[in-house]
Amino acid sequence: MPSTLSNPLRLGLRQERVISPQCLVIFGASGDLTHRKLIPALFELYLQRRIPSEFGIVGCARRPWTDNEFREKMKVKLSNKISGKETEWEQFSNYLFYEPVDLQQSDHVVRLSKRLNEIDKKQATHGNRTFYLSVSPNFYASGCKALKEAGLLDDPKKSRLVIEKPFGRDYSSAKKLNKIVQSCAEENQIYRIDHYLGKETVQNILVLRFANTIFEPIWNRNYISSVQITSSETVGVEDRAGYYESSGALRDMLQNHMTQMLAVTAMEPPGKFEPEAIRNEKAKVLQASKLADENEPWNCCIRGQYGEGGNISNQLKGYRQEDGVNSNSTTETYIATKVFVDNWRWQGVPFYLRTGKRLPKRLGEIVLTFKDVPVHLFESTIINPAPNQLILRIQPNEGATFKFEVKSPGSGMKSRPVEMEFSYDESFGEPSDEGYVRLLADAMLSDPTLFTRSDEVEAAWKLYTPLIELMDNSPWKLPIYNYESMTWGPPESDQLLSKDNIFWRRP
Amino acid sequence: MPSTLSNPLRLGLRQERVISPQCLVIFGASGDLTHRKLIPALFELYLQRRIPSEFGIVGCARRPWTDNEFREKMKVKLSNKISGKETEWEQFSNYLFYEPVDLQQSDHVVRLSKRLNEIDKKQATHGNRTFYLSVSPNFYASGCKALKEAGLLDDPKKSRLVIEKPFGRDYSSAKKLNKIVQSCAEENQIYRIDHYLGKETVQNILVLRFANTIFEPIWNRNYISSVQITSSETVGVEDRAGYYESSGALRDMLQNHMTQMLAVTAMEPPGKFEPEAIRNEKAKVLQASKLADENEPWNCCIRGQYGEGGNISNQLKGYRQEDGVNSNSTTETYIATKVFVDNWRWQGVPFYLRTGKRLPKRLGEIVLTFKDVPVHLFESTIINPAPNQLILRIQPNEGATFKFEVKSPGSGMKSRPVEMEFSYDESFGEPSDEGYVRLLADAMLSDPTLFTRSDEVEAAWKLYTPLIELMDNSPWKLPIYNYESMTWGPPESDQLLSKDNIFWRRP
Repeated sequence: MPSTLSNPLRLGLRQERVISPQCLVIFGASGDLTHRKLIPALFELYLQRRIPSEFGIVGCARRPWTDNEFREKMKVKLSNKISGKETEWEQFSNYLFYEPVDLQQSDHVVRLSKRLNEIDKKQATHGNRTFYLSVSPNFYASGCKALKEAGLLDDPKKSRLVIEKPFGRDYSSAKKLNKIVQSCAEENQIYRIDHYLGKETVQNILVLRFANTIFEPIWNRNYISSVQITSSETVGVEDRAGYYESSGALRDMLQNHMTQMLAVTAMEPPGKFEPEAIRNEKAKVLQASKLADENEPWNCCIRGQYGEGGNISNQLKGYRQEDGVNSNSTTETYIATKVFVDNWRWQGVPFYLRTGKRLPKRLGEIVLTFKDVPVHLFESTIINPAPNQLILRIQPNEGATFKFEVKSPGSGMKSRPVEMEFSYDESFGEPSDEGYVRLLADAMLSDPTLFTRSDEVEAAWKLYTPLIELMDNSPWKLPIYNYESMTWGPPESDQLLSKDNIFWRRP
Repeated sequence: MPSTLSNPLRLGLRQERVISPQCLVIFGASGDLTHRKLIPALFELYLQRRIPSEFGIVGCARRPWTDNEFREKMKVKLSNKISGKETEWEQFSNYLFYEPVDLQQSDHVVRLSKRLNEIDKKQATHGNRTFYLSVSPNFYASGCKALKEAGLLDDPKKSRLVIEKPFGRDYSSAKKLNKIVQSCAEENQIYRIDHYLGKETVQNILVLRFANTIFEPIWNRNYISSVQITSSETVGVEDRAGYYESSGALRDMLQNHMTQMLAVTAMEPPGKFEPEAIRNEKAKVLQASKLADENEPWNCCIRGQYGEGGNISNQLKGYRQEDGVNSNSTTETYIATKVFVDNWRWQGVPFYLRTGKRLPKRLGEIVLTFKDVPVHLFESTIINPAPNQLILRIQPNEGATFKFEVKSPGSGMKSRPVEMEFSYDESFGEPSDEGYVRLLADAMLSDPTLFTRSDEVEAAWKLYTPLIELMDNSPWKLPIYNYESMTWGPPESDQLLSKDNIFWRRP
């Protein structure tokens, strides 16, 4: 996470909104996310001078830490990021507080409430609070209830509730959870976080589409033949086997991040750039989406699990050999599926989504492939000329590439494909790929635009219900294919496209 | 003119057609064009290994040179280009012959005919001939007649006639000249040359438009708000005052090069990439074009003449002070005009054309400005956000630039303009900017695609007739504004656009 402070010029390019005085209360403060993402994001906001002076960060977890212990632990965990900015960290750490809390115990929550009142006075934060539920998903419902019972969510203008993914395990559990959460807080107090929406490049899809005239006229089934959305990781399950074994690629990536990218790519232009207008359009697209073959979903979905691989210097374990993974595990580490968006704009255009671990590259991209020209006036110098493509590069090398044909030099009149490129890095300096910086600020700014509304979450789960039912009830119908680590998934995933005469981009 | 031989890799990128055995006969062989453009282009073709071994180049002019004298003179004139390639030049110069000819004297033409028969035998060129009229325009008609009378144009399959610009001085003289030329040769034997069409980047406009899906849908009045076509030179009249005084920017550049760029930019897609199909479409566009105000043409045209300028180290003379220029000259060295193409695709879209000498940059470009977005969802970080633009760079830095909006980094949702670029140089190595190489080869290949057909020439003159009539009959109605050398023309040319709330691009 590069600091913009280190480059004052870049700071001048930024346009920032002002965060009001408030306390951010983090439940699960002893967990990974807090020191890996949340505190670093808050420190980054501090370095960007966006943290108001009337501010507090209150860590909560079951461990009996003191404020100072919490500060010390964070300092150790963040040592890399603090290095060279020790003075700034010392000032920043004055905002850090800690309160031991077990959300299941109502007296703890009452005690927390008192402590927050004290901190409000000390820090002049006026009872304005953002609660961040970074706890196990099993505790989302009871956590909300506990906060509600303690009266901490009573003022919808002064309290916000941020909930981490995964929001539910399937359509019915998500619906149930929404019902409980909405009984504790109003929908506009609830911020369901999807950190992909915090990425500059995902937000840029909206700007690209709706701040330019030339894309919208061709952004539809008349001109686009297919869309590919890829999110690939090189890492394996690492130390998250406990979580991942009960999740898998569908629940971990496909239902949320990938489907949000689909929504942003496919949505209609909103009437205004306002939270509800945008979320209405995203919900509409998700509600119009369905698997390419809902009745026989095995025809439109390929699951995979990584086997051994790598090279001599870096021999990699297969998923079933990883610590904490069942040696007969049927959890998928790769999933590819084909979706249609059944509306006027997109009917008939396949959206291919794929995500997986231990693939050859860490990559996020959206590839729009345009239809072929109606008449081939010019011969191409290559045997299989690719049609026009617009590639939105989410990460790394953030930006966009446009692939098109120009005249090949020489006396003939042949064409040859070339690429035009826009790179964030060249234009503005490398963008922070930390969605958390953006999203934490937005939640504290009471701006829900980039958070997922209840109907979106439910529609995204509903979309994959035929797959989930198969996986849960008759998994043999949706087999798990093995793929060698550091290859692009099982060969069967190529057939998913090749039967449509389309090929995955191999960046 | 870079040799492709010097870069064997680049040679591999080229796709070339094979020129048949033939004699190229150049009338006006003692003139500038021959040693500045034609022989260098032929030498370049030779270096590209595109000249067949059965070949001859016969220079003709009134001077009583021998073959060897002609070879020696060319060697001296081309010394820069020959340097380092002396062996190749020695071989190439074996193709060079010379015959003293005054086209006004029929016995000369009869003698030439005999000489050509001899050379045909010696070089095994089978009577296959391309005649290049690089003489004063006053002699185009009589030259054609003389060749006709000597029977040199009788075989339409074996004889071609290349005619230099200017083809006529106005609509009626061009029509008259066409009639005479067409009485001497069939239209498909006649190659009216416009060296702009020989440029890779002008031909690329066709490939860009018709080998890609994404441009054509937005290439019309629904999406484009205006088109600017610029061709600027930094040089003044140099040693061409004699010609230029009776020509001026309209006749020298606007009616031919600029109008051809308009035609290629605005034409409908042809059914096939065949000479007549393409020229039909170009002729149609030119016939649909008219000055923005035909009745009061002074409202849509600004003429200028360069005055003194430059800087202390390089003080430049004004046009009227140049050698050979009348000190009261009313010849324009700058012209800007506004044209409409009255058809379904372009009705209402202004095409602004400008060309001039002693402007700050040598430049050829076509700028397509798109309409603004219908709804401004995002604030821009700059005060006057430019709408999307596609800039086709004809010269220098050949290629294309696309200007569009992306998300400005930071927590807001503001947009900011950036550019994507395609550069010929980066992709293929710098393209030869020598249209003559391409066009000489095409004429010898009997490919008239890139030559101007009689109806095109006439339509282009007809388009500017209201201006020409004013200039010839009541020049005070179309005043010549003075502009300082090395500025972008008279200030009045800005008003031509600013009254439409548009501004010239200042590259």
